[in-house]
Amino acid sequence: MHHAAPPNGLSSTTGAAELPVPSHGGQVQAVMRHFVGAPEPFIDLSTGINPVAYPLVWPDPKTLQRLPEEGEEQALQEVAARAYGVPTPDMVVTGAGSQSLIALLPRLLGARRACVLGPTYSGHGQAWEHNGVPWSGVEHVQQVRQAVQQAGTACVICNPNNPDGRLLNMQDLAALAEQCAKAGSWLVVDEAFGDFATHSVASLLPHPALVVLRSFGKSYGLPGVRLGFLLAAPALAQKARSLLGSWPVGAVALAAGTQALADTHWVQQAAQKARLDHARLVEMLHGAGLAWRGQATLFTLVDTPHAYGLWVHLCRHGIVTRRFAGCSHSLRIGLPANEAEWTRLACALKAWQVARQEA
Amino acid sequence: MHHAAPPNGLSSTTGAAELPVPSHGGQVQAVMRHFVGAPEPFIDLSTGINPVAYPLVWPDPKTLQRLPEEGEEQALQEVAARAYGVPTPDMVVTGAGSQSLIALLPRLLGARRACVLGPTYSGHGQAWEHNGVPWSGVEHVQQVRQAVQQAGTACVICNPNNPDGRLLNMQDLAALAEQCAKAGSWLVVDEAFGDFATHSVASLLPHPALVVLRSFGKSYGLPGVRLGFLLAAPALAQKARSLLGSWPVGAVALAAGTQALADTHWVQQAAQKARLDHARLVEMLHGAGLAWRGQATLFTLVDTPHAYGLWVHLCRHGIVTRRFAGCSHSLRIGLPANEAEWTRLACALKAWQVARQEA
Repeated sequence: MHHAAPPNGLSSTTGAAELPVPSHGGQVQAVMRHFVGAPEPFIDLSTGINPVAYPLVWPDPKTLQRLPEEGEEQALQEVAARAYGVPTPDMVVTGAGSQSLIALLPRLLGARRACVLGPTYSGHGQAWEHNGVPWSGVEHVQQVRQAVQQAGTACVICNPNNPDGRLLNMQDLAALAEQCAKAGSWLVVDEAFGDFATHSVASLLPHPALVVLRSFGKSYGLPGVRLGFLLAAPALAQKARSLLGSWPVGAVALAAGTQALADTHWVQQAAQKARLDHARLVEMLHGAGLAWRGQATLFTLVDTPHAYGLWVHLCRHGIVTRRFAGCSHSLRIGLPANEAEWTRLACALKAWQVARQEA
Repeated sequence: MHHAAPPNGLSSTTGAAELPVPSHGGQVQAVMRHFVGAPEPFIDLSTGINPVAYPLVWPDPKTLQRLPEEGEEQALQEVAARAYGVPTPDMVVTGAGSQSLIALLPRLLGARRACVLGPTYSGHGQAWEHNGVPWSGVEHVQQVRQAVQQAGTACVICNPNNPDGRLLNMQDLAALAEQCAKAGSWLVVDEAFGDFATHSVASLLPHPALVVLRSFGKSYGLPGVRLGFLLAAPALAQKARSLLGSWPVGAVALAAGTQALADTHWVQQAAQKARLDHARLVEMLHGAGLAWRGQATLFTLVDTPHAYGLWVHLCRHGIVTRRFAGCSHSLRIGLPANEAEWTRLACALKAWQVARQEA
């Protein structure tokens, strides 16, 4: 592949214009064009995607040669209902990635305004904005509680949150859902990173004010499949299916979801491994003198005043982490995939620590 | 698979309640549960999908393990722009099936009302209805011309139309687009079956009042991939991308679209074969005393007062065709895939003709 020359000044992390922040994680090839000579293969720690993918059996290519049948779509809804712990399959809506369901929320709820607990995944605010619905970002749950008192407010909480891994407990979320129901507002809980978490508000469904989002790609390590779910009371779920229209997902997503979500053994093992790997990561960060936070299993957030310098340093070691626009003191770091990646990360962090101590 | 007992009375096509009409083509397994003992494999002529699929090289499974990169999405837009004859890739919007883009139209255009030239694909009317936009179905182009005079009207024309294969010419469509631009209305031309047609309004883009839809799955025989395109002037296309959000299609759709849409030789050969097969089909229908109509290559519409009886007769021969709710005198028939299918269809039609002559 083509490697462009690095911009001038990248040899030093001071005194040079910073590289632009990509709008999302991933985009590894685009980022690494600026770091000619970095060790390959590049290590992508810029997302919160499980580096251990579900061992998908690819569907018969012939399934691509026809439209999905209703029976296949219903079978996936049934498997998803069991996996996510909702009582009936008619509370499950299947979409081409949970992003496509986030984009649906403004039309689905018809809310007059939205309140997003942040900082969080940028797709939420953008969905309301692009649909012309006024929205505000707030930083404390108490502000959410105030906002939903006004009828017709959709409040959005990612739990665990991305990128800071903040995890609200069930009691607080259940109370907030009740408050929304009484006030004529909605609570949207995006559990995109919830598969490996200790609790899920999906167990509160059916609930008149609650919408839950789940992502398939992150914990099953298959984001390129594009599969996500919206969980809601049956009437709202039916409205969501109507708005999406027929055949929202194709043969590969149907096969992947039906296989993987039925495999409770795999997801338990994967959660166990991810928890161990998360513990290993934060210990390594701690050993390098770096502060971290969050209760999301698949990533952690590093707090350092030298976030850009650390990001550049890791890129030079062929390791891509996630910066955030307007936030110069944080880096999100995902889980390495194998011992080669762990070793390279450990060496890079050690080198960073030594360089900081000498500075 | 499970075959339920056929409902009573199906041994005769008279005096029994008719079987329900499926909401779409396909659903072959569901339909054939009512016809125990019919020859297998069942032949699906209920859709307008090319039975000859593009010989897709499946992507590396590793591409499922990461999110699509922007460069890959842009590469598909570039290939699609060339394939569809629009000047620049920024006029191309990629979606998970053209149905997902049909569902987007009400939000995208913000039209105050819609006018759908029909009868046509039911997803169009449903999209406006589910979004709370008043819409009317009209049967003549002259009625469309009247409707768009009222500013803020989105008129939808499928060209060639499904199911009747009606094909409007370029001059009429160009004049209508101009009329829409002057009146402050929009013309949506759904060219889902346009790949094998003689002309496309995509060549009129960029145009302030024109939106064109294309389907990948039908002519390339890969509907299970879920890939479709919206073509529009750059600002409107950008708005559509914003409303869809990030990563609207996954790794398989990106690979399939990028491979197939660049293969101009394949699509020319496929169009040639489909035209010959269409001629063979209508000759066979003519030979069986059945009237047909339409200029869509991948299907034809049979007009007969005995449409339900013919549908049942063909099902008993293991051949599924397409009935339409509220239309007892038409059947849509797609192209057989191979000589075995042609032979079974020919025999079934011959038997039908003999039975009708004896009746």
